[in-house]
Amino acid sequence: MILLDGKLVSQKILDSLKQEIQTLNLKPRLDIILVGDYQPSVKYVEMKQKKAESIGISGEIHRLPENSSTQDIVSLIQKLNQDNQITGLMVQLPLPPQVDTLTVLSSIDPQKDADGLNPTNLGLLFQKKSNGITAATALGIIKLIDEYHIDLNGKNAVIIGRSPDVSLPLFALLLAKNATVTICHSHTQNLSKICSQADILISAIGKPKFLGKEFIKKDAIIIDVGYATDPATGKSTGDFDFENIKNLVSYITPVPGGIGPMTVASLLYNTVQIAKK
Amino acid sequence: MILLDGKLVSQKILDSLKQEIQTLNLKPRLDIILVGDYQPSVKYVEMKQKKAESIGISGEIHRLPENSSTQDIVSLIQKLNQDNQITGLMVQLPLPPQVDTLTVLSSIDPQKDADGLNPTNLGLLFQKKSNGITAATALGIIKLIDEYHIDLNGKNAVIIGRSPDVSLPLFALLLAKNATVTICHSHTQNLSKICSQADILISAIGKPKFLGKEFIKKDAIIIDVGYATDPATGKSTGDFDFENIKNLVSYITPVPGGIGPMTVASLLYNTVQIAKK
Repeated sequence: MILLDGKLVSQKILDSLKQEIQTLNLKPRLDIILVGDYQPSVKYVEMKQKKAESIGISGEIHRLPENSSTQDIVSLIQKLNQDNQITGLMVQLPLPPQVDTLTVLSSIDPQKDADGLNPTNLGLLFQKKSNGITAATALGIIKLIDEYHIDLNGKNAVIIGRSPDVSLPLFALLLAKNATVTICHSHTQNLSKICSQADILISAIGKPKFLGKEFIKKDAIIIDVGYATDPATGKSTGDFDFENIKNLVSYITPVPGGIGPMTVASLLYNTVQIAKK
Repeated sequence: MILLDGKLVSQKILDSLKQEIQTLNLKPRLDIILVGDYQPSVKYVEMKQKKAESIGISGEIHRLPENSSTQDIVSLIQKLNQDNQITGLMVQLPLPPQVDTLTVLSSIDPQKDADGLNPTNLGLLFQKKSNGITAATALGIIKLIDEYHIDLNGKNAVIIGRSPDVSLPLFALLLAKNATVTICHSHTQNLSKICSQADILISAIGKPKFLGKEFIKKDAIIIDVGYATDPATGKSTGDFDFENIKNLVSYITPVPGGIGPMTVASLLYNTVQIAKK
C-alpha cells in the first residue's frame, strides 16, 4: 500500500506557486466571505488565509452575521467583483439554511471564482476544451492522482456522493481521464457490490468509517474526501475504515493529510492562475 | 415489450404548446443558425422550422457558408442576442472543423439558449435547484420516461457515449431522478458486462445496430439516441439491434420515431418557456 500524501504534494504545489508569484512579480489577492460562526468553517477559512499569506497571496476575510440574507451576501459579492485589487473570491460553504447557495455562487464573477463553483465554470467542465476555473476539491484530487502517475484510462471509477461542489466536477474530470465513471448515492441499491467492482473508489459523504472491507476491490485506489471527528476516539477520520482496509488497497489517501490540503493548494493554484491572466 | 412512442408523446407536447401560445397570446420566435450544406443538418433544420411554425412559433434560418470562421458565427450570434424580437436562438451542430464549437455555444445569451447548450445552462444542471434551460435531447428523454411513469429511483442507469450536448446533461438529469448513473465510452473495458447490469440503458454513439443481446439485461428499459442509415437496407436505424433485442426488454424507443421527435419538441418547449419569461 502506498499513501497518497496530500500534505507532501500540496506543499510542493505551494512552493512552486510561491516561486511563480515572485518570479512573475504577481500581486494575487484572495478574499473570502464567511457567513456566521460555525467553528469548523471559521478555522478552515483562517487556515486558508494563513496558507495564502505564506506564499505571497494577500486577502481579506469578510465576515457576515449568521442571519444574513441571500441579498446581503450577493450585494457584498457584487462590490468585491468590481474591486480590481481582488483577483480571487470565494464564499465558504456551507451557508446558513435561509440562504440560497446557488444564487450566491452564481453571483461570483466567473473570472474571479477561485473555488470554481459558479455554474458557468461547472458547465465548462462538461466541455472537452475547458477554459474555465476547475472546482478546487476535484482539481486537488486529480493533481494528487497525477503526481503519483496513476493511469485511469479504461479504469472503473466509482464516486459515492453527488454534491455539485465535489462529486459532479470530479465526475467530469475522471471522464476526461478516460475512466468509466459511476456515481452512487443514498438511493443506490447494492452499494457494496458496485463499489467492490471499482478500480478507483472515491467517497465524499461524510460518514465516519462507513466504508469497510466489503466495499473494496483488491488493489483498488482509495480517495477519501470525508472529514469528521470519530465520536469514539475524538480523532479526525474519513469515510473509509482506514485501518481495516489499508492492506487490501494499492493506494489510499490518509485523513487528515489527504484531500484536505490538496483542496487548499488548488484554491490557491486557481487564484494564481487568475492573477496571471 | 412496450414501445416508447416519441412521435405520439412529442405531438402531445406540441399540441399543448400550441394551446399555451394561443391562450397566453405569446409571440415566440426561434432563429436557427445553419453553417454549411451538410444535408442531414439542412433537412433537420427545415423540419424544426416547420414544426415550430405548425404551433405558432415564427423564426428565421440564418445560413452561413461552410468556410465561416468562429468569429463570423459569433458576430451573427451577438447581433441576434440583441434582437428583442427573437426569443430563442440555436446553432445547428455539428459545426465545420475549423470552428470552435465551445466558443460559439458560449456566445449564445444563456436566456435565449433554446437548445440549452451554453456552458452556463449545462452548469446549472449540476446544481440541484436548476433555473436554467435544459439541453433539448436530454430533456426529451426525461419527458418520454416521465410520460410512461417509469420510476428511476435507485435504478442502475448506464449511458454509452460522453458527448457534452447529450450524455452529460442526461447524466445530471438521471442523477436528479435518484438513479445510480454510469457513463461508458470508447475506452471502457468490459462494455457488455457493464451494460448487461443496467436497468435502463441509453446509447448515443451513432454506431448502427452495435448493441445486441449480450448488452441487455432482461426487462431493461432501452433508450436509443443513435440515428444512422443502415448501409445494408438503406433504412434508418439506431445504436441498438432492435429486432434482436425487442423481446428481451420492457420498454424501448424506436428509430425513427423515438428520441428524434422528442428532441424537437423539447427545443420548442424551451422556446415557449423563454417567451413566457
